[in-house]
Amino acid sequence: MQKKRKLGRGVAVVGAGMSKFAMYPDKDSKDLFAEAFNEMRSSVDKGLEPNDIDALYVGNFTNDFFMHQGHWGPIISDLIGLAPKPATRTEGACAASALAFREGVFAIASGFYDIVLVSGVEEMSKRPTAEVTEGLALASVPYESRVGFTFPGVFGAIATDYFAKYGATRDHLMNVTIKSHNNARLNPKAQFNMTISDLMKARIERAKKKGEPVPEWKDEKEALWDPRFNPQVAWPMYLYDCCPISDGAACMLLVAEEIAKNFTDNPLHVIGIGQGSGRGLHAAPSLTSFEANKNAAAEAYGMSGLTPKDIQFAEVHDCFSMAELIHIEDLGFFEEGTGFKAVEEGLTRLDGPMPINTSGGLKCKGHPVGATGIGQLIEVWKQLRGEAGERQIPKKDLHIGAAQNLGGTGGTCTVTILERR
Amino acid sequence: MQKKRKLGRGVAVVGAGMSKFAMYPDKDSKDLFAEAFNEMRSSVDKGLEPNDIDALYVGNFTNDFFMHQGHWGPIISDLIGLAPKPATRTEGACAASALAFREGVFAIASGFYDIVLVSGVEEMSKRPTAEVTEGLALASVPYESRVGFTFPGVFGAIATDYFAKYGATRDHLMNVTIKSHNNARLNPKAQFNMTISDLMKARIERAKKKGEPVPEWKDEKEALWDPRFNPQVAWPMYLYDCCPISDGAACMLLVAEEIAKNFTDNPLHVIGIGQGSGRGLHAAPSLTSFEANKNAAAEAYGMSGLTPKDIQFAEVHDCFSMAELIHIEDLGFFEEGTGFKAVEEGLTRLDGPMPINTSGGLKCKGHPVGATGIGQLIEVWKQLRGEAGERQIPKKDLHIGAAQNLGGTGGTCTVTILERR
Repeated sequence: MQKKRKLGRGVAVVGAGMSKFAMYPDKDSKDLFAEAFNEMRSSVDKGLEPNDIDALYVGNFTNDFFMHQGHWGPIISDLIGLAPKPATRTEGACAASALAFREGVFAIASGFYDIVLVSGVEEMSKRPTAEVTEGLALASVPYESRVGFTFPGVFGAIATDYFAKYGATRDHLMNVTIKSHNNARLNPKAQFNMTISDLMKARIERAKKKGEPVPEWKDEKEALWDPRFNPQVAWPMYLYDCCPISDGAACMLLVAEEIAKNFTDNPLHVIGIGQGSGRGLHAAPSLTSFEANKNAAAEAYGMSGLTPKDIQFAEVHDCFSMAELIHIEDLGFFEEGTGFKAVEEGLTRLDGPMPINTSGGLKCKGHPVGATGIGQLIEVWKQLRGEAGERQIPKKDLHIGAAQNLGGTGGTCTVTILERR
Repeated sequence: MQKKRKLGRGVAVVGAGMSKFAMYPDKDSKDLFAEAFNEMRSSVDKGLEPNDIDALYVGNFTNDFFMHQGHWGPIISDLIGLAPKPATRTEGACAASALAFREGVFAIASGFYDIVLVSGVEEMSKRPTAEVTEGLALASVPYESRVGFTFPGVFGAIATDYFAKYGATRDHLMNVTIKSHNNARLNPKAQFNMTISDLMKARIERAKKKGEPVPEWKDEKEALWDPRFNPQVAWPMYLYDCCPISDGAACMLLVAEEIAKNFTDNPLHVIGIGQGSGRGLHAAPSLTSFEANKNAAAEAYGMSGLTPKDIQFAEVHDCFSMAELIHIEDLGFFEEGTGFKAVEEGLTRLDGPMPINTSGGLKCKGHPVGATGIGQLIEVWKQLRGEAGERQIPKKDLHIGAAQNLGGTGGTCTVTILERR
């Protein structure tokens, strides 16, 4: 039985900014953070005096490994002129910046600080792909990566089990992928802001130019079944089931609720913050559900007094198409074993009853791991404030959205619920 | 002008435990954490039901680098049977676990949790010394380590500047070292629980056994001047100015003040938590003072309403003997440029008016970097509860102690003040 947890003091989001997520050969973590920070400043409707920020949290997974540089708290604090004020790095693998967000909430709710910058950053693309896979595997418990079970393999195994249990197939994963690309096409910040059809056209053009045989696909799924277009990574994970390698930064400004109106007339309120830890797949009760997700969801729903039905849309951690199905079930949006059908029926589309990953998700928006958690919350921010442009969810009275962030093979999960009042 | 910061809800320490810090060829991070956790459980006077712990914070600097394993939150959470509850890793280089402590305080003060385990762990000794130095240098800003300026060199430069400014000499650093070893001799948990005299005797015995020339030193300082006994590391840092490479773990149990009496009749109260960040030596206003220290001290004193004179003893981050002088000045125990005289006059001895590093400090107790911050606070816990055994400070009414933790070259500093009421 989950305790009902409460904050002693309310916390609001009053600003948000991110770099475009992409592979940047000539920009480093500081360059990308500066972009995110400057966008955040511009987003604060009534302006922000940076000197008023009390403290900083930076989520980063493993720039230690990727860039041979640790201790990112003071580096970022120096960059944005915040030193000598406190700067704390959080790490929970790919959930690093959702943890930064949560610690920022606690720091304000505790009464100690009033204005806190929460953020995330990661710089991955300068390492060869195999080394990035090695770096990411630092998140797995020792019984996984050290026996060669890196992330594509893990989610391949999860998908195989899911298929066997519930009768889903690769076609169902493709529905997730196609939907994510459709959303990303409408997101100028997405690393791949193209539909699968756009990618097919580009491939056809290339073939024509090079005088190669021109593929003839009758639709997106036929292309996704074609291994020349969509090669296998780890059965049944194919290239377009997998998120890209990305660099990027994202940040949000949190303030005590009672001063939120000094910054904007349109703040978002943090009404649910949940987190959980998991035991690794060797000890997990199930391959197709993360106990950390369940704990995070229970904490967040408990605090908010809401049920899954009250959440109007969500960003979830689709590092692989398969992961999206796990999360939308674990969070209770759909019953266990039915997520793939919900996607097939279009329920998670931008214009469906429960839009999922309107940003394009990690799959298409990009996944600079330490920046992802805040990046997801920025999509919730944009949707709730009606600032999502072409991909604005066409619902009346959009006022509650959630984000779910995953680290490792279910090792760390968070659920955050924001509300516009 | 530092704001006076307050917590909305008081937090108390009701349990503490640590492994002995040492080089363990046959124990890993989990083994050492289990030792610390079990000792913590035994320390809770009225008992602890581990299931009652709401959340976990783990400070770790770079087991990513040292052990090729990241994401220690869920690994430790699994180890102690806490999963699926939340587990968050904090990193601030060698101040990693003081940050875990502070986040635990915020999590309780926010009202969200009532019982939080805060901890730190690091496993360093399985890598060759040069690689440990490389790993630790991940904490430096890029302008330092990448030009070859690793930690012994940094503190050598700081000492050289301090000597030039204030007229101190190597003899004054030796006073720090001798004092630390005298205290460590009384601490069974110290990695080197021997005085310098003990070490001299051991060396003499060895020479006799091997039939080598037997050193004749008239006192400890003569031995410390002898490069065969105390070789140079980076001028004016010699071997016995430097802390060792260590493995270890430490943890403390924090609870909301209003339930502290359920756990012990002798809790400690968290009356000051300060933190600061620094800009790296290339941009620092001074080499002989850390602006992050000053900010941390101002926050902690501000919250507690105390001045440096009210602090009865302290553990400070003596990664090098020189560092101890900087910290006792930055925290205001002694005026700038006079710390070396205070040590010379015996003011910081166990029986002096301002005992410093009664545990033996990092220098002798050991420095498993991610575990150090909590390790320091455990000494404060033991002293304030009158459980420090042979090294108990001989003061009447000992009730306020502090710990100061440093990460990088002044990148992260914390000051924590505990009170027995």
